[in-house]
Amino acid sequence: MVLAHPDEFELVGGFDPSGAADQSLGQQLQLQAAEAIPAFTDRQATLQAKADVWVDFTTPDAVFDNVKFCLTQHIYPVVGTTGLSDDATKTLVTLAQQEKMGGLIVPNFALSAVLMMKFAQEAVKYFPDVEIIELHHDDKQDAPSGTALRTAEMMAEVRHPKQQGPADPKEYLAGVRGGDYQGMRIHSVRLPGLIAHQQVQFGGVGEGLTIRQDSYDRASFMTGVAVAIRKVKAQTQLLIGLENVL
Amino acid sequence: MVLAHPDEFELVGGFDPSGAADQSLGQQLQLQAAEAIPAFTDRQATLQAKADVWVDFTTPDAVFDNVKFCLTQHIYPVVGTTGLSDDATKTLVTLAQQEKMGGLIVPNFALSAVLMMKFAQEAVKYFPDVEIIELHHDDKQDAPSGTALRTAEMMAEVRHPKQQGPADPKEYLAGVRGGDYQGMRIHSVRLPGLIAHQQVQFGGVGEGLTIRQDSYDRASFMTGVAVAIRKVKAQTQLLIGLENVL
Amino acid sequence: MVLAHPDEFELVGGFDPSGAADQSLGQQLQLQAAEAIPAFTDRQATLQAKADVWVDFTTPDAVFDNVKFCLTQHIYPVVGTTGLSDDATKTLVTLAQQEKMGGLIVPNFALSAVLMMKFAQEAVKYFPDVEIIELHHDDKQDAPSGTALRTAEMMAEVRHPKQQGPADPKEYLAGVRGGDYQGMRIHSVRLPGLIAHQQVQFGGVGEGLTIRQDSYDRASFMTGVAVAIRKVKAQTQLLIGLENVL
Amino acid sequence: MVLAHPDEFELVGGFDPSGAADQSLGQQLQLQAAEAIPAFTDRQATLQAKADVWVDFTTPDAVFDNVKFCLTQHIYPVVGTTGLSDDATKTLVTLAQQEKMGGLIVPNFALSAVLMMKFAQEAVKYFPDVEIIELHHDDKQDAPSGTALRTAEMMAEVRHPKQQGPADPKEYLAGVRGGDYQGMRIHSVRLPGLIAHQQVQFGGVGEGLTIRQDSYDRASFMTGVAVAIRKVKAQTQLLIGLENVL
Repeated sequence: MVLAHPDEFELVGGFDPSGAADQSLGQQLQLQAAEAIPAFTDRQATLQAKADVWVDFTTPDAVFDNVKFCLTQHIYPVVGTTGLSDDATKTLVTLAQQEKMGGLIVPNFALSAVLMMKFAQEAVKYFPDVEIIELHHDDKQDAPSGTALRTAEMMAEVRHPKQQGPADPKEYLAGVRGGDYQGMRIHSVRLPGLIAHQQVQFGGVGEGLTIRQDSYDRASFMTGVAVAIRKVKAQTQLLIGLENVL
Repeated sequence: MVLAHPDEFELVGGFDPSGAADQSLGQQLQLQAAEAIPAFTDRQATLQAKADVWVDFTTPDAVFDNVKFCLTQHIYPVVGTTGLSDDATKTLVTLAQQEKMGGLIVPNFALSAVLMMKFAQEAVKYFPDVEIIELHHDDKQDAPSGTALRTAEMMAEVRHPKQQGPADPKEYLAGVRGGDYQGMRIHSVRLPGLIAHQQVQFGGVGEGLTIRQDSYDRASFMTGVAVAIRKVKAQTQLLIGLENVL
Repeated sequence: MVLAHPDEFELVGGFDPSGAADQSLGQQLQLQAAEAIPAFTDRQATLQAKADVWVDFTTPDAVFDNVKFCLTQHIYPVVGTTGLSDDATKTLVTLAQQEKMGGLIVPNFALSAVLMMKFAQEAVKYFPDVEIIELHHDDKQDAPSGTALRTAEMMAEVRHPKQQGPADPKEYLAGVRGGDYQGMRIHSVRLPGLIAHQQVQFGGVGEGLTIRQDSYDRASFMTGVAVAIRKVKAQTQLLIGLENVL
Repeated sequence: MVLAHPDEFELVGGFDPSGAADQSLGQQLQLQAAEAIPAFTDRQATLQAKADVWVDFTTPDAVFDNVKFCLTQHIYPVVGTTGLSDDATKTLVTLAQQEKMGGLIVPNFALSAVLMMKFAQEAVKYFPDVEIIELHHDDKQDAPSGTALRTAEMMAEVRHPKQQGPADPKEYLAGVRGGDYQGMRIHSVRLPGLIAHQQVQFGGVGEGLTIRQDSYDRASFMTGVAVAIRKVKAQTQLLIGLENVL
């Protein structure tokens, strides 16, 4: 990913404690572009690379030690791992404060989803009439999606409370008006072919505003990681969530 | 409406039993374009106009007598009135058979809605995985809309029966998966600003097909009336529904 | 409009220099709800109403004098008139500074359009690949729409400059790739039935974000006026554009 | 694919002239479900499998001989190969006539795209005001897409000719109104993240109809192949294009 922005980022090394010694990153990944880039098997040795930023997508256990190392060595961590315990997170946030260091732990790197939630939260202040339609492939058993719920929660924090919809609704087919989350309706569509999509639809007198997000591919975290790397060096705390740097 | 297609249609007269005698249609409607067109107050007198087609949007009672008159006089009736009883309809259909005359009674002239239903019925033969999302202004108390139900009925007639959606669904917010109509899901959105909209969304492996209809205005019957006038003269029965001539 | 928010706003008077004397606002507008509300024909007399906010949709000339009056009398002006000259605007802004008064001049009250432009400007910082599709009824002769151009301008201010689209494009039908505004593409759709709609569509690796705005009706300024009235009393300058208080 | 419909289809054998002898299809494809199914290296030997339908996605040369074999042996061919010469196709069509056999050669198996084109052709008879918006990833150099052009061609065959759009258009940004194909406008959007999508948008007085197709994945031919296998046995000619059996 970093290699896709050669004028902006430079990949200075990889770290894999269980990697083969004496092999470059390029040899390990069979990636010619990384042929000359060292792959370290010892964390302390990575300091030779003089990295500014440490990008970590490993397990919660490994991440905890890596981030501690980064913060004390004043390398900015960007972490994509989920599953860190609350205690572990708190410890790292405190350590960052002591070290006066910034960093980012990002549960969701899909930038379009993060922006959708941010914009939805802003728009709902003016348009309290809102419904969420989330659409996923029909392998997804649970509904609503986590993103839909999180969007609804974020809107509820700032929304003028009201029961949206007609004053005296008559539902002739149970469930047709969707799920009710604090007076907002959520609809979950499940169809083969679909990947992961959501639209947040606002209505006002004579007008409408819709914010839609589409994930077509797993690679949808890439723009978000690039943003995180760009922004992390300006941070002075360890922050949770990409929305904090947008 | 007819006046909007001057090269194709000619307005030859109006009929209003309670209208002022000796006034032209233009005078009654204060419409200059119809200045020279007669307005009849007596039905028998309308024969002077030698009309091919009789367009009727009046009450069920008036319509019944008017259509009887048209069929016996071999003028093709196009009727936009709803509320004719089943008996009255049957009588007229039989009369048309005897007279070997065609005609159209059209409960819904919104051509885009009629085509949407027709296409949906065709597509569902190949894509049994389908959900309907209908969206209306929040003054609409009832849900689902009549059009959504009618679409679902029409699809159910030809669809390979199956329970669409995930095999083992988990609904964490009641109703979020919408209403269930014979294994197809229907979602009703109600927001200020909206008028009347519906989308029928099909999914297959790696692909999707969506048919969407928007009504922005009451005038949305106009294209449908023009189609009916064009087609009625080729009919040899009294047909119910615009879809029969598309 | 104000009457629609009785718990939040109170209509204390109307001003119409050419109105009939001795008639209430309700009598003039034939609006029972305003029966007891005075309609002033003399500006100075409006002070009796002790208004906090003055809402003005009149002509540029009338507006200029009215706003001067408001600022010196410390009534907050909300102005929906377009066509004030730059000089007139400057004079009013300076007067507001002297009087330490806030106010709002709002060329576009369609809140959904204003939010769309604001969100588009924010999203383009992260997603420089963007196309605008604006859709209007086919009576609209000019293209692109003013809103589309203004959106593109606002995005260009903050966007990382790039030529969006394929590296080596081959356009086999002239114009099919749309208009080019600083490396972003704009497409104008013109169809009967449509009213005024726009979608700003962003793309990133494996993901997409779309912001869509629909105007269904002239009444679409109403939510925006309410927001302006709510916000104007907290302003300390005369501001141009609703986006400044969102 | 066929294995996904075990109650409807049965896979009775495979044919690979360069395959290893004495290996089952399952062994060759490392697919346990096909473990017991024979893989033939000799075409004549495939007759042992007593197949009803022969599905062929091989090269034009191979396909020509295979289809000749099928037609004379009265096995129904379903062919997904493109690139057969006109002469070769004509020879096969004639042979099918002589043998009184049906078959299908299908250049585009994406059923949602085929249905979209079919529906668009039907709708344009009633709504001559139409614009096409096709959206593809920005690796696609050429515009418009083949599907968009084919859709426009199919509509032009039956459409009442007219120049769609405003009567006196003013294009302030060259190309913003899109490409003109016989009075219909086509717009090509190119953005990263997108895959292959098209919407055909119709407008009438006060109403609109939109038909949209999304390809998310290469696997989008699967539903179409299943339809072809189901339908081919009822054919009495060798037909070109899936639309002929829908």
